[in-house]
Amino acid sequence: MSLDEFSLIRRYFSDRASASVNSNVILGIGDDAAVIQPPPQVELVSSIDTLVAGRHFPDHTAASDIAYKSLAVNVSDLAAMAAEPAFFLLSLTMPAASDKFLRDFADGLFAAASEFEIDLVGGDTCRGPLSISIQANGYVPAGRFVSRAGARPGDLIMVSGQLGNAALGLALIQQRLEPDPGLGKPCIDALNRPQPRLDMRNLLRQYATAAIDVSDGLVGDLRHILEQSGVGARIDKQKLPVVDWIRQQDEYDYALAGGDDYQILFTLAAENCDQALEQALASGIDLTVIGEITESAFVMIDDDQQLDLSNYKGFDHFDT
Amino acid sequence: MSLDEFSLIRRYFSDRASASVNSNVILGIGDDAAVIQPPPQVELVSSIDTLVAGRHFPDHTAASDIAYKSLAVNVSDLAAMAAEPAFFLLSLTMPAASDKFLRDFADGLFAAASEFEIDLVGGDTCRGPLSISIQANGYVPAGRFVSRAGARPGDLIMVSGQLGNAALGLALIQQRLEPDPGLGKPCIDALNRPQPRLDMRNLLRQYATAAIDVSDGLVGDLRHILEQSGVGARIDKQKLPVVDWIRQQDEYDYALAGGDDYQILFTLAAENCDQALEQALASGIDLTVIGEITESAFVMIDDDQQLDLSNYKGFDHFDT
Repeated sequence: MSLDEFSLIRRYFSDRASASVNSNVILGIGDDAAVIQPPPQVELVSSIDTLVAGRHFPDHTAASDIAYKSLAVNVSDLAAMAAEPAFFLLSLTMPAASDKFLRDFADGLFAAASEFEIDLVGGDTCRGPLSISIQANGYVPAGRFVSRAGARPGDLIMVSGQLGNAALGLALIQQRLEPDPGLGKPCIDALNRPQPRLDMRNLLRQYATAAIDVSDGLVGDLRHILEQSGVGARIDKQKLPVVDWIRQQDEYDYALAGGDDYQILFTLAAENCDQALEQALASGIDLTVIGEITESAFVMIDDDQQLDLSNYKGFDHFDT
Repeated sequence: MSLDEFSLIRRYFSDRASASVNSNVILGIGDDAAVIQPPPQVELVSSIDTLVAGRHFPDHTAASDIAYKSLAVNVSDLAAMAAEPAFFLLSLTMPAASDKFLRDFADGLFAAASEFEIDLVGGDTCRGPLSISIQANGYVPAGRFVSRAGARPGDLIMVSGQLGNAALGLALIQQRLEPDPGLGKPCIDALNRPQPRLDMRNLLRQYATAAIDVSDGLVGDLRHILEQSGVGARIDKQKLPVVDWIRQQDEYDYALAGGDDYQILFTLAAENCDQALEQALASGIDLTVIGEITESAFVMIDDDQQLDLSNYKGFDHFDT
């Protein structure tokens, strides 16, 4: 079939996007640019991320999962800033305008958009090797965003959810790992359908001194907080929230360097810890204290041993 | 040399970006997301465009030209909406992190950013086939943006600058055209260093009923205005602003379908024409009346002939 770029955009994106447009969107998809009226008293939080086939998702990933994940990882950046999702733009590059691919892609995209309550307002499609750039925008009350730069010595380090599941999912798909009853679908889902922790928003605004989403692995992402805050950290390996399989096999690298978890890693003043945990419990949010911020150095305690993490390699897109 | 992704971003982008950050940028490049405080009483205008190597620019284009053009074509979308550039995000995908490529790319990018007065606030780099996504944002006083949808029968059709030069430049580079004294560097520059018509902003806000930037060729882009405004048009071939070579050789396809011109095509009420032309003249803006909006049909007058343009093919990224 022959679809020109414009009817293609209209069929799969514009027509569906117009249904979800919120009241801040004055002009949505289909013009030179979108026009948005941000609400008063908010700051705009803006992020962009590109996913490349074979690099950020395995070849043969379902089109709907590719789309879902592309939006989820961008919304996760908003979640890490304690922002509320508002609107996004999509640039989709693909080898050919296949009808089935586009229909499935749009299904995954709008499923994610609906879950995360974010509106597609603009985009671009062109031909080339498969890659997806999404630029996501959110709002945060003025002055209430959380950056990577505010951690102070004595702060506790917390993380939401479990670490390492997406990396286990990837290892299963790539058959680097034998199927195991303790792993399976939850790990594959963690890889293909990551859940940005938008439920953490209020907790972060209230308590966090610094925050980041775990996209490159715990060590690499915590290092960003340490560098930008000018501090060190000590984490406790036994406290890391991981599936039993990782603990039993002592395969903590999945959690430390695996990436793609999209949990929130944050720091908070020690005196606020009990109140934050109580509030999290009441909201059904799973948090674990994994260590504390120190003056300098970056180490992990493993029983009585102390491992230096300052040169430990996380996942790096240019590291071969 | 070995550069990891983070030191690479820091060296070529973060350090240089921080120098140019304007007062609306609260948190710039280097965190999970940027934080911006839009000024009061403005609407935010947002656009995204991806340029793919070999498709949107010829292979062997200089890295500085690639960067310059990538930003220029996005800023051109803002210009077409009558918006003022504010900030942008960059996603750069490339096969390897070459030091020279990155230095040259950053040079071209910041040269363009400085000319267009727009700040880099965030980005993403990853490995893959060379492609550049830029998401550009501007401000427009509330209610003063110009869309594609407001053209009315009887409006005149105007265009800025000359049409077809970038397409001539591409033909010269690809040696589909013999070098000619009437062509040359201005055409190559039009291709590699397009100039978004930010000087048109006030004129558009004051007079335009609809506007678009000419990226896909005059016919294709005017068709967008016609479709979204629900009207027709009659344009006069003899009036098209083109270099003498096109007129002498009767090679108007370069102007009609060539693309990449990034001039502004707009409509305005006939009674405002003289005043708009006078104001343009006073501001050094080159405008040409090329036709008028009609009730329906899309035709071009060529001497006494009337050509139907409704099925004329403009440049289409999915058209093979």
